[in-house]
Amino acid sequence: MQAREKLAAVRKAFINHAIAGYLQPVHDEYMSEYPPAAFQRVAWLSGFSGSAGMAVVLADKAALFVDGRYTLQAASEIDASCFSIYNSAEVTAEAWLAGELQGAMIGYDPALFTKAMLERMQARCDKSGVALVACPNLVDAVWADQPAPPATPVFLHDDALAGESAASKCERLGKRITEQGVDAAFISAPESVCWLLNIRARDVECTPLALVRAVLHGDGHVDLFIDPKRLPPLPEHITAIHPPSLARLNGKAVLCDATQMPVALLDELKSAGARIVKGEDPCVLPKACKNPVQLAGIRAAHRRDGVAVSKLLKWIDAHPDIHSVSEMDIDRQLLSFRKEQNMFIEPSFPTIAGSGANGAIVHYRANEKTNRNLKSGELLLLDSGGQYEDGTTDITRTIAIGTPTAEHKDRFTRVLKGHIALATVQFPKGTRGSQLDSLARQYLWQVGLDYDHGTGHGVGQFLGVHEGPQRISKRGGDAALEIGMILSNEPGYYKVGAYGIRIENLVEVVEKGEGFLGFETITCVPIDTKLVDFSLLSSEEKHWLEEYNARASLL
Amino acid sequence: MQAREKLAAVRKAFINHAIAGYLQPVHDEYMSEYPPAAFQRVAWLSGFSGSAGMAVVLADKAALFVDGRYTLQAASEIDASCFSIYNSAEVTAEAWLAGELQGAMIGYDPALFTKAMLERMQARCDKSGVALVACPNLVDAVWADQPAPPATPVFLHDDALAGESAASKCERLGKRITEQGVDAAFISAPESVCWLLNIRARDVECTPLALVRAVLHGDGHVDLFIDPKRLPPLPEHITAIHPPSLARLNGKAVLCDATQMPVALLDELKSAGARIVKGEDPCVLPKACKNPVQLAGIRAAHRRDGVAVSKLLKWIDAHPDIHSVSEMDIDRQLLSFRKEQNMFIEPSFPTIAGSGANGAIVHYRANEKTNRNLKSGELLLLDSGGQYEDGTTDITRTIAIGTPTAEHKDRFTRVLKGHIALATVQFPKGTRGSQLDSLARQYLWQVGLDYDHGTGHGVGQFLGVHEGPQRISKRGGDAALEIGMILSNEPGYYKVGAYGIRIENLVEVVEKGEGFLGFETITCVPIDTKLVDFSLLSSEEKHWLEEYNARASLL
Repeated sequence: MQAREKLAAVRKAFINHAIAGYLQPVHDEYMSEYPPAAFQRVAWLSGFSGSAGMAVVLADKAALFVDGRYTLQAASEIDASCFSIYNSAEVTAEAWLAGELQGAMIGYDPALFTKAMLERMQARCDKSGVALVACPNLVDAVWADQPAPPATPVFLHDDALAGESAASKCERLGKRITEQGVDAAFISAPESVCWLLNIRARDVECTPLALVRAVLHGDGHVDLFIDPKRLPPLPEHITAIHPPSLARLNGKAVLCDATQMPVALLDELKSAGARIVKGEDPCVLPKACKNPVQLAGIRAAHRRDGVAVSKLLKWIDAHPDIHSVSEMDIDRQLLSFRKEQNMFIEPSFPTIAGSGANGAIVHYRANEKTNRNLKSGELLLLDSGGQYEDGTTDITRTIAIGTPTAEHKDRFTRVLKGHIALATVQFPKGTRGSQLDSLARQYLWQVGLDYDHGTGHGVGQFLGVHEGPQRISKRGGDAALEIGMILSNEPGYYKVGAYGIRIENLVEVVEKGEGFLGFETITCVPIDTKLVDFSLLSSEEKHWLEEYNARASLL
Repeated sequence: MQAREKLAAVRKAFINHAIAGYLQPVHDEYMSEYPPAAFQRVAWLSGFSGSAGMAVVLADKAALFVDGRYTLQAASEIDASCFSIYNSAEVTAEAWLAGELQGAMIGYDPALFTKAMLERMQARCDKSGVALVACPNLVDAVWADQPAPPATPVFLHDDALAGESAASKCERLGKRITEQGVDAAFISAPESVCWLLNIRARDVECTPLALVRAVLHGDGHVDLFIDPKRLPPLPEHITAIHPPSLARLNGKAVLCDATQMPVALLDELKSAGARIVKGEDPCVLPKACKNPVQLAGIRAAHRRDGVAVSKLLKWIDAHPDIHSVSEMDIDRQLLSFRKEQNMFIEPSFPTIAGSGANGAIVHYRANEKTNRNLKSGELLLLDSGGQYEDGTTDITRTIAIGTPTAEHKDRFTRVLKGHIALATVQFPKGTRGSQLDSLARQYLWQVGLDYDHGTGHGVGQFLGVHEGPQRISKRGGDAALEIGMILSNEPGYYKVGAYGIRIENLVEVVEKGEGFLGFETITCVPIDTKLVDFSLLSSEEKHWLEEYNARASLL
């Protein structure tokens, strides 16, 4: 089935629901970043395989809205005669809708939208009299061979790695929500449930998640909505409920994180007689602030991962015929080095191995069509990570094949200076990552350059490679940085059609004397000095680089 | 009347309004920073003379909530047996109320609160069942000798200085609000009205404001709510309406900036039959982005102001007996030098001349009780500004009396490095000041220090010395920086009980090549190199300082 036919099938359903269009976001009902095949609705509909975005289907046209990371990729993946592509930072789906239509109804699947998403879109659409209305999922309705939702076996995440038993976490958070004045918390985010109960599964690629939801009661008991056949023996305070039932919440005050809960779920809770109290998912902050046992595991995982990546760099360096090596070869070779490592389970995200111009595609993934061989005088951008049972890694190195140009070195060195500025900054408690973002950009800004992505994201332990509430980006609204949080430090520079540069290490937030915090870099892979223009570095920066490379040399 | 008696009088009124407490903010019904005597209710009630804060009176206790700038000052001004003082960054008035009371009603004057202020406070109070209820102003009710509201003569701000006639501004903005789909805009902020109509008055100290409101109609006509006796001949498109009447707005869609409008005004508009459309005050952004004529005037004012301040610095330098000179002498002497300058009207805020420990009081104002003489080995922090008909200035210099200590020099140099980092940064269009704030703090953070105030505020032209929507601070929510905006660049460092350091210049936002902006410093007074530890400066920083001091040497 071609995109054109799929769109036609979706459009056919418009009349039954009295709608003039339909919204299909990339994310799924679990707001997960890597939806399982069953939920990859935008990919099925349009061919776009990125991790964020929104398709809008109207009667006579369709559009795809993606962020700056994905504009190039989307253009290469979709049929331009079916979909127009917009950078959502320039044109939002709602602004486009408001411009295209007057007084129409647009359908959305309430399982895929939070209240805030809908309100924001509706506010913009109001001006054109466009109304968003709930309807069944129209992609599911026409997707004949849609796979079944995943239901892989659940396994335990050892207390010796988690540093705290599920019982202890549930009791601790149960007390906290009781203090907040609620009877229970509905935990809608699978990563929160998995963290809280020390369970994992393989429902999605790259993240060891069980796509499940749960209710935490004030006394520490948990209702876990899952088929018990999937479960190993669990502690007594956890009760599997199947099929899901919210009957126990009738008349109860239930804490709900409306920022991440689809409106469909909120409606179900209301129907069950629960009184909804809005507040933050109680797992989010404790999950982000790793305990000493987790931190030790995470550092151990980074050393093993450092060995694997360092081996790959040596393998490239020593390769007798590097020009015969392709991006996909790099990916395969790196995976084989990672597989040698203890506790390695799978990559933490699809490897980005972008050679030459492919490196400028921020979230590039090589396929048979785009795959390029490495070439002398070009850069290879290599962003990859591993899920180890004791930690999740994420690292980017930029590798010069042959001799880099002066421009390569200038840009790389500016990115490096930003990376070092962030790696070494010390800041008062209460500081948010968004206050630090410019430190990483300043040396590019100096010469009129920038990069179109965030500077850092939170990282879980054997969980999501992207997690909140911390981040380092231009946008505000992030949480204050706290001791034990893990973040990436990943400034970059991209020249479309030419090359991409990114230097990414993970850092741990550590105490730096009275009232101050800072970062400690935990990634262990040397940074290629062949790309450094030392005349641009201060003596402090040179010292940092030397020391880091010495510390990160594991082979 | 002592504070105790005043509080008793306010408390006596509680029973008539069935309230258990009363909220009195420092700001007035015009949300002005320097309320006229008639509206200085917190000063009358408590003795606190700062420009921001909130008094809360309960039956058996009272508290004053002030920001970090004012905690020391408040402690020195109020009777601690009547009021407790809280840093509002640590304990908000609403959090305190929610802790002190259960199920009580607290009165507020609806002329003094925006909807957002009330909602934020109410949300926190909800948890304790505390309800905020509108009531008359209880300070006005008991203040026997309260002065009359000001009504000074209105004068015109010459088109040759404003760079655009009132008629042109009104037509331009009338068109804009028509495009937004409203019939009129209610302009509640006096500085917006004064800017829009090119009028000024002397209703308050330090800002040449007429405390008036107006309605801008889509066709460019303006209803100005003012006693016509105060007015000079005005252009025909402006109609004075007295007493104020909203009758013409019946049935009209009226744009209101609810973020700055007291709820009492919104209620009046609703009663008059207006349909309220929420949106930004249409004057705010055009007022902030100065036109080339304004910018030329502002720069000229800064050169004249630079001469005055430089004369003062020379006068200090050459003084035969500097130890006989007091903070108040400095203020008087500086005023006399400013008065020599063409177009000078008045100070743009009360001069802060803080010698030694007084310098650590961020918004210090010397009085007979606190006045200190300058002393060798101490620092003098001198923050002052002028209202000139062509521009508003604001400058801080820190002056070493005798020989500074190594600590003075270290701290001053770190503040200077932050100042230079901000003065020289280049950033992409769309960047907000909050993204740049950390650049000014980084060298203090490096050694575990910081300052408890913003780094920069917008500045008007012969109007408010503090204006939005731009600012440079830790907090987000600020507008993107745009060409022609004026901001202060004023990092500092304060050691309580010892000294204060601040280096403040005003900067203009200018274009820096394709897609990028930067700052150009417009303040013209050399920075004292006696306080610089040159070993901490990079060669670029040394170059900036040398060049700036050469350019700023006017005498």
